[in-house]
Amino acid sequence: MDMARSPRLQAQLDQQAAHFTASVFFDWRLLPYDVRGSIAHVTMLAEQQIVTPEAAEKIIAGLEQIRQEWESGQLTPRLEWEDVHMNVEGRLAEIIGPVSGMLHTARSRNDQVALDMHLYMLDVGEQLKWGLLDVIHALLERASADFDVIIPGYTHMQAAQPVLLSHHWLAYKSMFIRDFERLSQWRERTNYSPLGAGALSGTPYPTNPGRTAELLGLGHVYDNSIDAVSDRDFLLEFLSWASLTMVHMSRLAEELVLWSSQEFGYVRISDAYSTGSSIMPQKRNPDVAELTRGKAGRVIGRLQGLLTTMKGLPLAYDSDMQEDKEAVFDVVDTMNSVLIVVSGMLRTLTVNRDRIAKRLGNDFTAATDLADMLVKSGMTFREAHHLVGHVVSALESVGKGFQDVDANWLKTVAPQINPEWLKQLSPENLVEKRQQPMGTAPKRVKEHIVATQKWLADQGYRFSS
Amino acid sequence: MDMARSPRLQAQLDQQAAHFTASVFFDWRLLPYDVRGSIAHVTMLAEQQIVTPEAAEKIIAGLEQIRQEWESGQLTPRLEWEDVHMNVEGRLAEIIGPVSGMLHTARSRNDQVALDMHLYMLDVGEQLKWGLLDVIHALLERASADFDVIIPGYTHMQAAQPVLLSHHWLAYKSMFIRDFERLSQWRERTNYSPLGAGALSGTPYPTNPGRTAELLGLGHVYDNSIDAVSDRDFLLEFLSWASLTMVHMSRLAEELVLWSSQEFGYVRISDAYSTGSSIMPQKRNPDVAELTRGKAGRVIGRLQGLLTTMKGLPLAYDSDMQEDKEAVFDVVDTMNSVLIVVSGMLRTLTVNRDRIAKRLGNDFTAATDLADMLVKSGMTFREAHHLVGHVVSALESVGKGFQDVDANWLKTVAPQINPEWLKQLSPENLVEKRQQPMGTAPKRVKEHIVATQKWLADQGYRFSS
Amino acid sequence: MDMARSPRLQAQLDQQAAHFTASVFFDWRLLPYDVRGSIAHVTMLAEQQIVTPEAAEKIIAGLEQIRQEWESGQLTPRLEWEDVHMNVEGRLAEIIGPVSGMLHTARSRNDQVALDMHLYMLDVGEQLKWGLLDVIHALLERASADFDVIIPGYTHMQAAQPVLLSHHWLAYKSMFIRDFERLSQWRERTNYSPLGAGALSGTPYPTNPGRTAELLGLGHVYDNSIDAVSDRDFLLEFLSWASLTMVHMSRLAEELVLWSSQEFGYVRISDAYSTGSSIMPQKRNPDVAELTRGKAGRVIGRLQGLLTTMKGLPLAYDSDMQEDKEAVFDVVDTMNSVLIVVSGMLRTLTVNRDRIAKRLGNDFTAATDLADMLVKSGMTFREAHHLVGHVVSALESVGKGFQDVDANWLKTVAPQINPEWLKQLSPENLVEKRQQPMGTAPKRVKEHIVATQKWLADQGYRFSS
Amino acid sequence: MDMARSPRLQAQLDQQAAHFTASVFFDWRLLPYDVRGSIAHVTMLAEQQIVTPEAAEKIIAGLEQIRQEWESGQLTPRLEWEDVHMNVEGRLAEIIGPVSGMLHTARSRNDQVALDMHLYMLDVGEQLKWGLLDVIHALLERASADFDVIIPGYTHMQAAQPVLLSHHWLAYKSMFIRDFERLSQWRERTNYSPLGAGALSGTPYPTNPGRTAELLGLGHVYDNSIDAVSDRDFLLEFLSWASLTMVHMSRLAEELVLWSSQEFGYVRISDAYSTGSSIMPQKRNPDVAELTRGKAGRVIGRLQGLLTTMKGLPLAYDSDMQEDKEAVFDVVDTMNSVLIVVSGMLRTLTVNRDRIAKRLGNDFTAATDLADMLVKSGMTFREAHHLVGHVVSALESVGKGFQDVDANWLKTVAPQINPEWLKQLSPENLVEKRQQPMGTAPKRVKEHIVATQKWLADQGYRFSS
Repeated sequence: MDMARSPRLQAQLDQQAAHFTASVFFDWRLLPYDVRGSIAHVTMLAEQQIVTPEAAEKIIAGLEQIRQEWESGQLTPRLEWEDVHMNVEGRLAEIIGPVSGMLHTARSRNDQVALDMHLYMLDVGEQLKWGLLDVIHALLERASADFDVIIPGYTHMQAAQPVLLSHHWLAYKSMFIRDFERLSQWRERTNYSPLGAGALSGTPYPTNPGRTAELLGLGHVYDNSIDAVSDRDFLLEFLSWASLTMVHMSRLAEELVLWSSQEFGYVRISDAYSTGSSIMPQKRNPDVAELTRGKAGRVIGRLQGLLTTMKGLPLAYDSDMQEDKEAVFDVVDTMNSVLIVVSGMLRTLTVNRDRIAKRLGNDFTAATDLADMLVKSGMTFREAHHLVGHVVSALESVGKGFQDVDANWLKTVAPQINPEWLKQLSPENLVEKRQQPMGTAPKRVKEHIVATQKWLADQGYRFSS
Repeated sequence: MDMARSPRLQAQLDQQAAHFTASVFFDWRLLPYDVRGSIAHVTMLAEQQIVTPEAAEKIIAGLEQIRQEWESGQLTPRLEWEDVHMNVEGRLAEIIGPVSGMLHTARSRNDQVALDMHLYMLDVGEQLKWGLLDVIHALLERASADFDVIIPGYTHMQAAQPVLLSHHWLAYKSMFIRDFERLSQWRERTNYSPLGAGALSGTPYPTNPGRTAELLGLGHVYDNSIDAVSDRDFLLEFLSWASLTMVHMSRLAEELVLWSSQEFGYVRISDAYSTGSSIMPQKRNPDVAELTRGKAGRVIGRLQGLLTTMKGLPLAYDSDMQEDKEAVFDVVDTMNSVLIVVSGMLRTLTVNRDRIAKRLGNDFTAATDLADMLVKSGMTFREAHHLVGHVVSALESVGKGFQDVDANWLKTVAPQINPEWLKQLSPENLVEKRQQPMGTAPKRVKEHIVATQKWLADQGYRFSS
Repeated sequence: MDMARSPRLQAQLDQQAAHFTASVFFDWRLLPYDVRGSIAHVTMLAEQQIVTPEAAEKIIAGLEQIRQEWESGQLTPRLEWEDVHMNVEGRLAEIIGPVSGMLHTARSRNDQVALDMHLYMLDVGEQLKWGLLDVIHALLERASADFDVIIPGYTHMQAAQPVLLSHHWLAYKSMFIRDFERLSQWRERTNYSPLGAGALSGTPYPTNPGRTAELLGLGHVYDNSIDAVSDRDFLLEFLSWASLTMVHMSRLAEELVLWSSQEFGYVRISDAYSTGSSIMPQKRNPDVAELTRGKAGRVIGRLQGLLTTMKGLPLAYDSDMQEDKEAVFDVVDTMNSVLIVVSGMLRTLTVNRDRIAKRLGNDFTAATDLADMLVKSGMTFREAHHLVGHVVSALESVGKGFQDVDANWLKTVAPQINPEWLKQLSPENLVEKRQQPMGTAPKRVKEHIVATQKWLADQGYRFSS
Repeated sequence: MDMARSPRLQAQLDQQAAHFTASVFFDWRLLPYDVRGSIAHVTMLAEQQIVTPEAAEKIIAGLEQIRQEWESGQLTPRLEWEDVHMNVEGRLAEIIGPVSGMLHTARSRNDQVALDMHLYMLDVGEQLKWGLLDVIHALLERASADFDVIIPGYTHMQAAQPVLLSHHWLAYKSMFIRDFERLSQWRERTNYSPLGAGALSGTPYPTNPGRTAELLGLGHVYDNSIDAVSDRDFLLEFLSWASLTMVHMSRLAEELVLWSSQEFGYVRISDAYSTGSSIMPQKRNPDVAELTRGKAGRVIGRLQGLLTTMKGLPLAYDSDMQEDKEAVFDVVDTMNSVLIVVSGMLRTLTVNRDRIAKRLGNDFTAATDLADMLVKSGMTFREAHHLVGHVVSALESVGKGFQDVDANWLKTVAPQINPEWLKQLSPENLVEKRQQPMGTAPKRVKEHIVATQKWLADQGYRFSS
């Protein structure tokens, strides 16, 4: 029997249509949340004397059994019962008989599925929180381990100015802390119970939605029943959060791909996060980093998909909204694994210090500071900028860097420049001079590492060693 | 043993990373295409005397066995073998021993996976072609069955001018014929073999890629090996095709949802394509139409996802491209089922002729034609447009339609209008007058039905009755 | 002279490339923010004795003059000066001579443009805040004005259960209050100064970024210079906010389009927000609602665009990021006008009470409650649901509603139903019974109106009358 | 007077709503197409004796004058006339008086705007065709100029196998030729006239839509009037085309950014396509390449936007569709400039041959070929792959390349490898051996250059030198 099938529908659902509309093959993961929600619901119904304590007890026992069957893998989804909710109800009827029908009193699948998704997403939020904190911690470990490494910082993929590698890692930390804040605020906004909205208007029974929410540990109840069943903001906002987080991940991944190329050679991604080629024996491919970058597209596409699906839907519930689940579940799974592999990949990186040091000795990333010295000697910045530009061009044409400059040569090319100044242009000096709280001076960076460690501890993060 | 794992990688792949990078759980459907490609490859290798006939024979027999194991469901994917290609190769080694290693001569996974996707997509194209033709035929059946029904045509969701319902159905036919044309051209562009490109540069063996293509029934060979392994145009273009087709589907679905509402009441979607409510006994929900509309978002999101993934990737192959499969497979499955349920839903619709007739008698969709009559009597169109607008306002304020107008009343409001004219404004007369080849006159619509039937027959479509 | 042009670049920029890379034609609106930022910067430089007080004074006077020239429309952008920043600097040099060169000390265009965008977006946030509050207020006005109107609430576009029209309007209020909360949190996260980051690493000058932030009224300073110049989260998050808000707007707009159709006829959009047809004199098109719905696509597309642009960009600044401006400005303008026209359209709607009342008398939206009555009489909900479904089918086949049921007829069809119950199924009774805090009972809805009025007042919203 | 304003609308349009709904500030570029369409329309009307020859003559003269006023910049858009069509009609009335009203006979803005867009897009298609051919030619020039340069080909951003730089350029040629084919097929599908569809149903006048199409040089007439006014496929398909083309552009741009970095140093982008830094005197930023890459996001976003806007719209015309114009115009302008700057940038690149040669001598891109040699000596490919992997690891650990291998050392590490073989592993030998038609052997590449030159000539491309 198709229990959700109204007697108004005389013919059976077409078999293809049944597959098309059924969600049970993908909403199966909601089962424990559905059971939790149902137990809270029937508990409240009993408290409000809408069902008898005996009925409630039987229903709860049956639901607990179903949860165990699900956990042990005994229960399998049945297509003819459409979705996870009807599968639970159908199985409940098999176990406890007609009294199971009481469970659906004062409830609709519209508020039920919304509740399940809220409960599920709150668990997801908790899990992603720890995953994100772990990535932040991995960056912090790198920032400590690589503290004495100076790399050329880039703009436009051109070496620009020397920065501490730690400072570079911490830039990602700053992004992920913003992501963390957004995640926290989203979790607060998700912490709402829609139960009690019924199909859309509330219910004529003397229910107590606040009590159900309390039983479920939910902080709030929706304040409008129509909104409660038609709202998918908490899913769209989640996908927006994930998209932005994945933009950050894709930037980090891009840099790891670049830095592990032979041309850069700054890092070596651990074998545990690399793959080989089926044909080219010399290859070490940064597969994990590439896939992380690629999955940014996937997540962004899912956001776009659900935004497009929701666009222009009239209130309250429309079946289009059923499309929310596969999109969200896919992104949940993606985010969970990205957070894990990225922190693992970061922690197991090897930094090629020699290669980086050699690279830095040989460039013009000190040019800004040379110009600044000219400014201190009285030039305007614009004039200094032009003069140094000329010197760089001249040196480049003879294949030399600042360190190799001959004093006599310099006198002919740019007499305003004191040859002694060039000696002060070592990467170490240059980073040392950036003393603003946000600057790359080692002292500042150290302070940030300490502050972030404290922040992590404040979030309850447990340091493993 | 992880066969794709290079000896350069000393540590094992991290377990999480293994799951993250493995594709075998979703590329499993490519197995028969992988086997077909491999058989053609080894046949060519033997013909070119790159492998011995004996080796080729053994390999082919082994591959055939693997295909049978897959078809019968005996074969299960192994994570440690990463992807479908290595699973085939690994299983082959188990069956025929070391000679299996010959199969990978002069081939890379880069050109192999590209080939599999081409072969798969050509099959998909064939299947979707018939699905699309069937939707067109369903529209044609509707156009014939509903030939005598006149509905108000809408612009801005406001009743505008009467049209044949058949004419309305045929508008969708025109969209889907464009989709059909795009599908055909895409299939032509997909009909290319990348095999022979190796990892990216070709291969030093004296292979004959044209022969492999011929064995596989592929029309062309890529003309550039780097392009052959880095090209995903045929997948992006497919997703673009699907997105546009789904825009059409979503418009049709929107109209079926509207028309089956109580407010419109134009059609009744068959029980076989409707669902009930778990709480509201009176409900008949147009679930299939809603989901079709909603899935437009899903498909569009997948297009966006892959476009974003491919953006900015350097040549030739990058692992990001592995993201192509889940996106494309999801859209293939979606399109296949949408085409089936939409044609079924169309064929089983009931049109509420009485309701529609009553609706049409009561509106002002004849207003344009009344204005045109005034134009013929010498007014400019702009003046006539204004005058009729005034009459409509006046009638509306007294709750009357054109049919109920009192001649005396009209004389005071708009003496320029001959009361006799109003009698010529029946929906039948109005549609009759639209005699342009693209107009809604029954004769024209009839011609289109016949022409489309012929077109369908020309495409090889078999009419079931 | 092209001031941003390095002497290292010997040839002139190609003319087409100059147009391609120049931003001055679209970043011109940032000028007042650029001037504000520069005044704060030079004030700080003087305080830190990096420039002399005299130089600072001259520079500030020159900048003030430029702002006035811009405000009065005298200043026009010059292509050869690329962007708004160089236009300001170039014009400053014309006005005050070489001392203008001091302004760029300890600053880069990278942190400068980031600062301008932060300042601009904070102004935008303030403006949108009031716009959004005004939409909420317009909904509240409607909720008060339409308090006594009961409409059929819909799910799946099928009439489901009666609800107060006020309750329906307030569902949108709940959405927009979430949008408001998101906007507020985004504003907090935008309230950061990137100035002091220089090109990417900080600056060797003894600047005081905290002081500059203070002078500009910004609450915080970025804590990492690389992040400060590469961060576009505040723009991406804004576009996400706008996309979600537009999803809500599109749902509201869809309903207004539907409700103003002849088939629904629930509302009449004011002439001030309707347009006519160039050809059909009887038409009143809900243009403003349609465009609002359509612009959801535009805004969502802009989010997609910038996400895609940012995906995979290495740190710190890349020119790709210049694409942020046109996307964001377009969305800012769109949101500003949508908020204004939607609140205007809502306030000037006419509700067709008679039409709605007639509509409600004639349907089966009471079916759930009838089932609930059966439950109270001892049936399980599932049994009651089936029985009522049968009754609805039977009534529908004879063209009657619940109100018209003959007691004898009922006895033969469903003897379990007490004919007296049907009298209790008036829309008024049904809404009255939904007494949960989120339910549609008039008392509850009234409470929400009052609570929202208080909330609005707490946000500083001034009620105009 | 607002001419499009129906007398049914008594109040004036709200001023904000007027701005919101008006399109004249962005559809102004359609004026010459609107005039062309109108001249063809009135010519046909006269031929069909629907208007008098005298009226037609006057109207045509007036329209010609308007076109001239537009071309000379004398005409300015007026907000109160909403859109370009009403601006033309309003101005026409000013010039020739009431007879201008005849022009709108048997036409609606719905088919009129669709016609304008078709005519415009066909011109766009012609322009983009030449732009695209020019990019292909620029690649061909590069392929000729750089014919003797061998670079490491990359997969996963890891050096993989040597390829001719020409071969790499020609991979992009292959992509753009597919884009060219898609553009051509799209142009064919755009070559349709919607005129004659009226508002949506055709027109009662004895018009001749085929004749109007003929006068306009359009190849076909839409076959269904509802489709004719509701179809935006030709715009969506255009945006899909542009998105795919921009994916190719973004890949090329990414490579130019990478290759012009100090780490790669393969190419130097001409000064004419580079910009400097406002703060770092040594910088040469690949601005044009970066913006090209970034604009891929913009174009993809516009596709997403219009797909979302069109999703779920009921037939026939809805105002949402007005959003098509800004999206499409933005992409047209973007594509036009991208094609121009990319071909310019390609033509003016300098290739650093020394740097590339040095780079190639020092890597393991010959590893596949070494494995292939082992295969020829009797090993299976899998065994050979493993052995070479070991050798590469061993060499890498001692800092040597294949060229530097000591025979004795090799004997201890991999006695199966004949030291003589290593001498055959020069890049020149390796590319020479790839003789498949799609391979990188110089002879093959040369053939492709010649074939593409012929193809270009066949398309009518004129070679400038």
